[in-house]
Amino acid sequence: MSFYNSYILLHSWKQNYTTNLTMRKILVIGSGKSSSYLIKYFLDKSESEDLHITIGDINIENAKELIGNHNNAEAIILDVFDQDSRNNAIKNADIVVSMLPARFHIEVAKDCISYNKNMITASYISPEMQVLDIEAKAKGLVFMNEIGVDPGIDHMSAMKVLDTIREKGGKIILFESFTGGLVAPESDNNLWNYKFTWNPRNVVIAGQGGAAKFLQENKYKYIPYNRLFRRTEFLEVEGYGRFEAYANRDSLKYQSVYGLNNVKTLYRGTMRRVGFSRAWNMFVQLGMTDDSYTIDDSENMSYRDFVNTFLPYSPTDSVELKFRHNLKIDQDDIVWDKLEELDIFSSSKKVALKKATPAQILQKILMDTWTLKKEDKDMIVMYHKFGYELHGKMHQIDATMVTIGQDQTYTAMAKTVGLPVAMATLAILDGKIKTPGVQIPISKEVYTPILKELETNGIVFSEKEVPYLGYNMLNV
Amino acid sequence: MSFYNSYILLHSWKQNYTTNLTMRKILVIGSGKSSSYLIKYFLDKSESEDLHITIGDINIENAKELIGNHNNAEAIILDVFDQDSRNNAIKNADIVVSMLPARFHIEVAKDCISYNKNMITASYISPEMQVLDIEAKAKGLVFMNEIGVDPGIDHMSAMKVLDTIREKGGKIILFESFTGGLVAPESDNNLWNYKFTWNPRNVVIAGQGGAAKFLQENKYKYIPYNRLFRRTEFLEVEGYGRFEAYANRDSLKYQSVYGLNNVKTLYRGTMRRVGFSRAWNMFVQLGMTDDSYTIDDSENMSYRDFVNTFLPYSPTDSVELKFRHNLKIDQDDIVWDKLEELDIFSSSKKVALKKATPAQILQKILMDTWTLKKEDKDMIVMYHKFGYELHGKMHQIDATMVTIGQDQTYTAMAKTVGLPVAMATLAILDGKIKTPGVQIPISKEVYTPILKELETNGIVFSEKEVPYLGYNMLNV
Repeated sequence: MSFYNSYILLHSWKQNYTTNLTMRKILVIGSGKSSSYLIKYFLDKSESEDLHITIGDINIENAKELIGNHNNAEAIILDVFDQDSRNNAIKNADIVVSMLPARFHIEVAKDCISYNKNMITASYISPEMQVLDIEAKAKGLVFMNEIGVDPGIDHMSAMKVLDTIREKGGKIILFESFTGGLVAPESDNNLWNYKFTWNPRNVVIAGQGGAAKFLQENKYKYIPYNRLFRRTEFLEVEGYGRFEAYANRDSLKYQSVYGLNNVKTLYRGTMRRVGFSRAWNMFVQLGMTDDSYTIDDSENMSYRDFVNTFLPYSPTDSVELKFRHNLKIDQDDIVWDKLEELDIFSSSKKVALKKATPAQILQKILMDTWTLKKEDKDMIVMYHKFGYELHGKMHQIDATMVTIGQDQTYTAMAKTVGLPVAMATLAILDGKIKTPGVQIPISKEVYTPILKELETNGIVFSEKEVPYLGYNMLNV
Repeated sequence: MSFYNSYILLHSWKQNYTTNLTMRKILVIGSGKSSSYLIKYFLDKSESEDLHITIGDINIENAKELIGNHNNAEAIILDVFDQDSRNNAIKNADIVVSMLPARFHIEVAKDCISYNKNMITASYISPEMQVLDIEAKAKGLVFMNEIGVDPGIDHMSAMKVLDTIREKGGKIILFESFTGGLVAPESDNNLWNYKFTWNPRNVVIAGQGGAAKFLQENKYKYIPYNRLFRRTEFLEVEGYGRFEAYANRDSLKYQSVYGLNNVKTLYRGTMRRVGFSRAWNMFVQLGMTDDSYTIDDSENMSYRDFVNTFLPYSPTDSVELKFRHNLKIDQDDIVWDKLEELDIFSSSKKVALKKATPAQILQKILMDTWTLKKEDKDMIVMYHKFGYELHGKMHQIDATMVTIGQDQTYTAMAKTVGLPVAMATLAILDGKIKTPGVQIPISKEVYTPILKELETNGIVFSEKEVPYLGYNMLNV
């Protein structure tokens, strides 16, 4: 008890030492990859907006680097599972931003309820988070979630156009939305036109866990995992060329939230450069993306042994020819060069992972080639299509956004995730966003000022009227 | 309390009325499809072996028909979840055969422990059943499981050859085992050369739930579900022509039980007639066998709508052409005729199943065509390959068994499942099988007399020495 009290005293003293009494105290928990722009935004505004920023993380190296020797910020060691230090940090803050991995938000959220603090995350609302809605409303607290890039900017930019169409009397009949985290054109120098700009694991296991479901001209459509990467469609972004997209698992997730219950076509997808999916499909077909079992003796395998695991035994035939034969790959197919670029048939490179799943091994192999180099830049691309009927005529608006990173700290991912989080934080602190409850940014009150401010930061949607294409071009 | 007592009295009186005091009382719980031969076997032996057979089921129609007016048997209504009647029936028996679906055995098994009764099932040992091993051994009870056809006859016939090879000093290097429940040649009159001779659901979802794993020349091999039906191998059975086989999910399940820890190749598979798997693969590829989600509005769909659900929308192109294009099916490919035979493109036939999974809908469509007709006969085929080294030379023994059903009551399935169960029951009753514990039929004590008696009932393995083929025929 006495230890606890002296801890509080020490902590309060420290707070007073660094914090002006009139300052508004923002607590950011978690300072990983996506926090650079978020923290920079707060620091840049700290004087004019009277902000003091505390960054809590279990490892404060990155936070310290981001803060530099700025006066209005400090980094503190904070283990989110250490209740005392978590409670104290939250109690002392005016508002809390959780940039932790999604599964850790709930501990922070419960404290925010206890100590009456507003809270912001960039993550999907978990069922546990949703449960707090009643208490948050009762206490008048704003718990803003899904306000990064995807989810986040996608919600806001889509709702803006959807609301505009509806306000002028239009009836939405089609909504398609695509996002991709990719490598910037200037750093796009491998045959896959792809590098890992975010969690590699999510890329390797993307699309698993159930059929993709969407709505096409009033018909529910389902694509099993093994067909997902062969049912892509092409998208053209002015100035950036051609992309392709494969279906996300549940395109209908936001149907009612977006007010699209009467829409005929609803599709959400993930963007890649053209040709990625057809090549990726080779791994899917052979079972190399499976994450449900471990490979025996994976530790001592070469990359070649790993590939051979998915091919029939032969005392004579090469792994290469078995691979080509199994997947019917022609001699002159470019997908072959993509495989060779990965050095996946190497008999000298070792897997060196104990009890690894195929997905884990494949991830390791890909990371050899697809890891961003120091000078590489990333890119976020978003593409929405809105089809609607107005006064008996069909219309379509296409909205596209491309953001390119500055370097490996100030990435496009960090920018598009961090800035909307930061802007929402300040707007809540200023009382501009005040509707309480566990929510996502789909109301005008939220998206209008944030989209506007994002524009001044270079995150701009280009909207244009295009001929309505839909799916029934001949009207038969 | 008084009700309970009078129930017992009534029950005992009924038992005494129908049972001679010296008779040995067999209780068979469950009298479904596979119990015909089992019951016939007991009835035929009831005079010479002094047997009284009680058949308990929740629905005794089938049991009554199988018994006819035989003196030494009776059918009683028995709900396995009604503890009192279950306890009483088991208490009054000398031995208990459970022919219930596998998940219901455990209730019976626990009573058998309580009342000191030996027990027989044809099902895989569940973890709950395995737990009873200690108590069964302590009480000296035989709990024999997996003594139907597969599992059952496969264990016994394999162990017989394996033990023989080992006894003469041979070293097993290869074991492959295949079983198929098929339609008999005389009733084989559809393009798929297949009809449902057992639980249709298991056929539709076969191979799902994880990659197939096996051992090939000392290398672990894995086949994902989406490749399973394209990685088949052919098997020739004298007098019955050609079959194909796809890999079972876990070929290594019995590796240590069979004493095959040093084997180089271990493969277990399911047999079909040639061409079945390549055609079945169409359903797998499109996602029509998926059992993990329900289709919206499945109730009002036509078969054609169902197929179209897995194909891209088009206002003009036919479902047929989209299907052909999606799976690259040539104009003259026989698989197309197989689809048409199922009438799967019918726009008048309705699914008429509420909230059904793709697998449930496909099952319904297939049952229209693949249900056995009254005059149809089924067939069980088994094929083992044993490769071994003896005195520095390689050898191979192939063992095959074919059993054809008599009619739709006395099926090959009921014969090959029911007879080994019945024979084991009598052998345990006679004290010929007496090693206690939860077990499967892999010891000589068990398999030698039963395989011999199965032969006199026409279930005969033809074993022959063949040149060792293995996988490295050129020894490179």
